[in-house]
Amino acid sequence: MGVIYMDNNATTRVDPAVAEKMLPYFTEMYGNPSSMHSFGGQAGVKIEEARARVAGLIGAQPEEIIFTSCGTESNNTAIWAALKSNPDKRHIITTRVEHPAVKNLLEYLGKNGYRSTFIPVDKSGQLDMDFFYKNLTEDTAIVSVMWANNETGVIFPIEEIAHLVHERGIVFHSDAVQAAGKLSVNVNRVLVDMLSLSGHKLHAPKGVGALYVRKGTKFSPFLVGGHQEKGRRGGTENVASIIGLGKAIELAQQRHDDVNKRIRALRDRLEKKLLEKIPNSMINGDLEMRLPNTTSIAFEYVEGEAILLMMNEMGICASSGSACTSGSLEPSHVLRAMGVPFTAAHGSIRFSLSVYNTEEEVDFVIEKLPPIIERLRQMSPFWLDREGSSNICSIQ
Amino acid sequence: MGVIYMDNNATTRVDPAVAEKMLPYFTEMYGNPSSMHSFGGQAGVKIEEARARVAGLIGAQPEEIIFTSCGTESNNTAIWAALKSNPDKRHIITTRVEHPAVKNLLEYLGKNGYRSTFIPVDKSGQLDMDFFYKNLTEDTAIVSVMWANNETGVIFPIEEIAHLVHERGIVFHSDAVQAAGKLSVNVNRVLVDMLSLSGHKLHAPKGVGALYVRKGTKFSPFLVGGHQEKGRRGGTENVASIIGLGKAIELAQQRHDDVNKRIRALRDRLEKKLLEKIPNSMINGDLEMRLPNTTSIAFEYVEGEAILLMMNEMGICASSGSACTSGSLEPSHVLRAMGVPFTAAHGSIRFSLSVYNTEEEVDFVIEKLPPIIERLRQMSPFWLDREGSSNICSIQ
Repeated sequence: MGVIYMDNNATTRVDPAVAEKMLPYFTEMYGNPSSMHSFGGQAGVKIEEARARVAGLIGAQPEEIIFTSCGTESNNTAIWAALKSNPDKRHIITTRVEHPAVKNLLEYLGKNGYRSTFIPVDKSGQLDMDFFYKNLTEDTAIVSVMWANNETGVIFPIEEIAHLVHERGIVFHSDAVQAAGKLSVNVNRVLVDMLSLSGHKLHAPKGVGALYVRKGTKFSPFLVGGHQEKGRRGGTENVASIIGLGKAIELAQQRHDDVNKRIRALRDRLEKKLLEKIPNSMINGDLEMRLPNTTSIAFEYVEGEAILLMMNEMGICASSGSACTSGSLEPSHVLRAMGVPFTAAHGSIRFSLSVYNTEEEVDFVIEKLPPIIERLRQMSPFWLDREGSSNICSIQ
Repeated sequence: MGVIYMDNNATTRVDPAVAEKMLPYFTEMYGNPSSMHSFGGQAGVKIEEARARVAGLIGAQPEEIIFTSCGTESNNTAIWAALKSNPDKRHIITTRVEHPAVKNLLEYLGKNGYRSTFIPVDKSGQLDMDFFYKNLTEDTAIVSVMWANNETGVIFPIEEIAHLVHERGIVFHSDAVQAAGKLSVNVNRVLVDMLSLSGHKLHAPKGVGALYVRKGTKFSPFLVGGHQEKGRRGGTENVASIIGLGKAIELAQQRHDDVNKRIRALRDRLEKKLLEKIPNSMINGDLEMRLPNTTSIAFEYVEGEAILLMMNEMGICASSGSACTSGSLEPSHVLRAMGVPFTAAHGSIRFSLSVYNTEEEVDFVIEKLPPIIERLRQMSPFWLDREGSSNICSIQ
């Protein structure tokens, strides 16, 4: 068996149909959409088709979509736009479990003239809504809450939050990078003012994202330059990738049911079997309000990174948290915020599936992972200590 | 004859060898370089190879290169980095002929708590160095001067400016988007602190750029998010395009002589013949200190956009200025700054060649353009007026 890729919340395979659609825009129709000649103009037409596709996915109007270079740029743009458009307000609310693209920016802003409030979550990863209500003030410029968490897959009550924030005339932004294409994300039903999307989380290439900005929302560009994107984002359009994003969105719409039935069932099978076979293991986060493709499983008393390395040798790709925070020895900020004990947080693995995953792959992981955990536990001082303590306890 | 593309300062064809190099990173090696598994890690290795290539082009160290999404992002990043790192300084110097990615940002900053000074240029497009010297102050945080102008191809005395600015402890940034790959751009010889590059100006795809930051230069990220690019630029790396940029740089190094001999000769032939055949036409800008691939030719008393449309019908692609300012009825800010008369600025066309252009193509333009200008002049009230006035003069 080749590579078993179960790290789709980190990035996804570009669908071959997406790559095929992009190709001619590299070497043949390579004009600049801003050019006066029709050679460039034809690229501009294709960009507008892609814009309509992206808008269609979330129930928006095409002119409410701005193309960016990634989800991080979309998030940075949204937050800065709200702050620049409300220069008298200095307060921002977000959650303790946001992606670094929001969390790190708000930590930076918190040290540079702004006040950032981070909403805590409970054990199941759900927001403390009372805390949130109490912290909404006249000084709040923007509330930014992710639609679904990248590590646990936990889905937030965005409709309720949006309504509440919108009602008070505060800008509401949601990072929907993980939700789009997996859940119904509709800006007609949910009063979100700005919404971030990323191409490479839904089988479009890395290097392209989008930001929805509701008509009437005050806006100020983040990347200042040429007149592209109606003056809302300078820089020559990433033509091929934007066209690829359009195609990926089309595919995501067609595959919505497959993700929500087949992939959900595969995910459920994976976690059920692993939990049965491996003692001292548990799911992190809300079991119901959760992305259909994601599971974060804690294997107590082992190091997540050691699990990943041993799985890697068998060609299994998963993650110990966000790829954007990896390389750090700290356990995931998401699991810490949820109060997951140290010994469980450190041994947590995220599996995130896509339409490319098969039952055969899931069964392979179900077969190979339990002995890995067993072997690592035999080497783990924490696991041995745990047995030691329990022995001591039984003697007493 | 197919499309004759002479608009390479707007954007270039992705070299087929570049596209080929990129392809596997879409559908096969699509991992996230930040992932713990080797499937993602292999992409990270390739990114570092590309980084070394980019560094090699300009004589930098690999760790001095940050990948961005475009030249505009590189420019925005450099300017904001200097301002955030020198919070007590509020003055910025640039030129009146910068690309909108610098000009529009500094105009914005000029209205938002900063003071922006724009160095004027003379008739040949060269900087007023006295004006520049006089405006360097203790309050100056950054000087940003493009290496070569995108519209006229005029090359600035970057070595002299860099030395002067660096000596005073002021940050010096140069937008080298048009110069890199055509001229020798070397950060060992020229004391530039930050330097912007763009992929799609040198046969890499749109959607990728780079920023050189000299070791020791104070830096603050523009896109805040994950730890990518050593914490200097958040957002998942645009793996395929970065690898493509590396390949394009390799090709640019191999083709340097071709651009400076064959392409320069084609450009010279094009402008010489057009000037011979078309009365009331002239080159905009310095004839010597100029990019080898660029010519901006003024055809008096005609509308540039009308020329472009008629050339377009014959498959000839050129530009009336920067693609990033097109769509505006204003004549080019670059030509206005040079004091080019209204009747000449409005009728100016930029031809920008690449290694793909042939002698046959140049001869085609030499054959087809003079009758276009002739025909348009016959319809131009300015041209007829000119004859009228001269008639009146001769009567007097």
